[in-house]
Amino acid sequence: MKRRDFLRAAAPGSQEAPLSEAPAVQTRPRVAWRLASSFPNSLDTIYGAAETLARRVEALTEGRFRIRSYPAGELIPPLEVLSAVQNGTVQAGHSASYYFQGKNPALVFDCTIPFGLSARQLNAWFYYGEGLALTRELFADFNVINFPGGNTGAQMGGWFRREIGSLQDLRGLKMRIPGLGGEVMNRLDVTVQVIPGGEIYLALERGAIDATEWVGPYDDEKLGFQEIAKHYYYPGWWEPGPGLSFYVNRDAWDALPSAYQEAFRTAAAEANEHMLALYDARNGPALRRLVAGGVQLHPFPEEVMTAARRITEEVLEEFASDPAYRKVYAACKAWRDDAYRWFGTAELAYGDYVFGTGNR
Amino acid sequence: MKRRDFLRAAAPGSQEAPLSEAPAVQTRPRVAWRLASSFPNSLDTIYGAAETLARRVEALTEGRFRIRSYPAGELIPPLEVLSAVQNGTVQAGHSASYYFQGKNPALVFDCTIPFGLSARQLNAWFYYGEGLALTRELFADFNVINFPGGNTGAQMGGWFRREIGSLQDLRGLKMRIPGLGGEVMNRLDVTVQVIPGGEIYLALERGAIDATEWVGPYDDEKLGFQEIAKHYYYPGWWEPGPGLSFYVNRDAWDALPSAYQEAFRTAAAEANEHMLALYDARNGPALRRLVAGGVQLHPFPEEVMTAARRITEEVLEEFASDPAYRKVYAACKAWRDDAYRWFGTAELAYGDYVFGTGNR
Repeated sequence: MKRRDFLRAAAPGSQEAPLSEAPAVQTRPRVAWRLASSFPNSLDTIYGAAETLARRVEALTEGRFRIRSYPAGELIPPLEVLSAVQNGTVQAGHSASYYFQGKNPALVFDCTIPFGLSARQLNAWFYYGEGLALTRELFADFNVINFPGGNTGAQMGGWFRREIGSLQDLRGLKMRIPGLGGEVMNRLDVTVQVIPGGEIYLALERGAIDATEWVGPYDDEKLGFQEIAKHYYYPGWWEPGPGLSFYVNRDAWDALPSAYQEAFRTAAAEANEHMLALYDARNGPALRRLVAGGVQLHPFPEEVMTAARRITEEVLEEFASDPAYRKVYAACKAWRDDAYRWFGTAELAYGDYVFGTGNR
Repeated sequence: MKRRDFLRAAAPGSQEAPLSEAPAVQTRPRVAWRLASSFPNSLDTIYGAAETLARRVEALTEGRFRIRSYPAGELIPPLEVLSAVQNGTVQAGHSASYYFQGKNPALVFDCTIPFGLSARQLNAWFYYGEGLALTRELFADFNVINFPGGNTGAQMGGWFRREIGSLQDLRGLKMRIPGLGGEVMNRLDVTVQVIPGGEIYLALERGAIDATEWVGPYDDEKLGFQEIAKHYYYPGWWEPGPGLSFYVNRDAWDALPSAYQEAFRTAAAEANEHMLALYDARNGPALRRLVAGGVQLHPFPEEVMTAARRITEEVLEEFASDPAYRKVYAACKAWRDDAYRWFGTAELAYGDYVFGTGNR
């Protein structure tokens, strides 16, 4: 009603300010926040989302609300980001919530699970399904409020020194793969290694590992795996659309004027969208360069996909004794059924016909 | 530099305002805009994007910059929206740029072309390719600046009273399908009809047409086509990821304080992302209901897809005598090659395995 009254009073299209109003400076304080990222700034794609957020918030508030972002380790170790936001060492963070499944296994649903939602499906679940409400219940235990903060899209399945023609070829293979994907690979008799990004190249070069996954063409190319391992597999069924998140300390959030909260919320939505667009823009040319340089692309064999999917179900069910996990897992599964049906229709048929190997 | 100076001066995390500054009221005038949409408010998905934009801009500016949106025809007829923004009758509009291909054929690239980019590919092209710069050159001739303003995702191929088993079955069929898709269908000997949304149901019921396309499950269900035609085809190869756009009159834009420009730009990005998420959330359950109600889903026969794609190339090439069109067309094709290669790899293989008809 207020809005209509205003519109009736003002001449439509008028850009003149009624200057009689009292200045509103007290609602627009200077605010300076620190944001700790779990990612190095060499990942311009992922780390860049925190910079997009900061830039937008600053512009939206005429420079009054500033967020300074810090790459992994500069202020806070990458895996301490959630704790640092929780205890107020920093006001905000940017991370992948599956890093914190040790604190609560249900946190994986804020990011991704093997054979889970695609990037678009995850956004739909967050914004127009129960996703955001359910994950915010989880983060409330940490005195944190979470916002979707980017997505890589479906990742690649990684780099292998030798071709993988069957499940048998995976047995005994030493592969760098963390998280739930690593647990599934472990049950497929892969010798799973967890190695930080900066050390993978050397491990692969020296033969300490036979295979590694990372992200996708654009990020992987920068780490140079193509110089050592020529077989590049897809899809990365363990990360079909991993979502990153911004975390905000609840007390810091509550202390913000509402217009600053809006600035953060809206800027986060833009950063969320732009990270995916950036990956989608950069991965194509990177893939072209990799293939031109001699990299061989292979889909995982059907029997690998089938076994991985079956074992994924086992692993996901094992966590379901935890009530918080069970609640989110059940909601996510129900959502997934409808989403898979829809995405398996017009969108998939179009992709098969137009992007499919034989057609493009 | 300015930012660093500030950060050095302020205690990190401080939320206290240095109140010594002069009030900044003069930079925050009351602004009231009118936005004319080309869409009825019965399409809550598409029309809703203008409302999202307005709500966000208002919140971001503490109610000082207000945009009132008008559904199609309430203030401006749907196909007059671009002209109305151009001549300043309204400050802003929301439309599908292929409606205005009569003014400049290259405007189709701001929306969609048959066998063109998917929603994610279009976003990537706009935000991190040449898309937005190239389309803004086109809109500059209209004294308009354009912003991506939503996407429906891949549309369905429409409703048919009888099954389509071959190209032969299309011949002589009376189908409601506008735009370039209609032109391609015309060359496949379909008798093409252009009928406004509100009149399609009656035309289909009375047999004046044998088939119609509209959008996808959620929007189509509301128009009730499933009560008459039981065969629902996919994909809508003529609209694989149509992008809507917000238009702003250049003089109105230039008169905005920069923080209001930022508010509009960021709110538009959020509205762009949220429309797609809303479609992705609503289409799945709608498709489930339609199928439960007896609708039969069919992919278009391969020979229909192949002929349509060949004729699409012919149609698109025919426009290329126009220099503005040729420039954007060439850029879009080059982008498409890399995008199709990437989307045909991890994303498609994941979709095929997980959402594909046999697997979900």
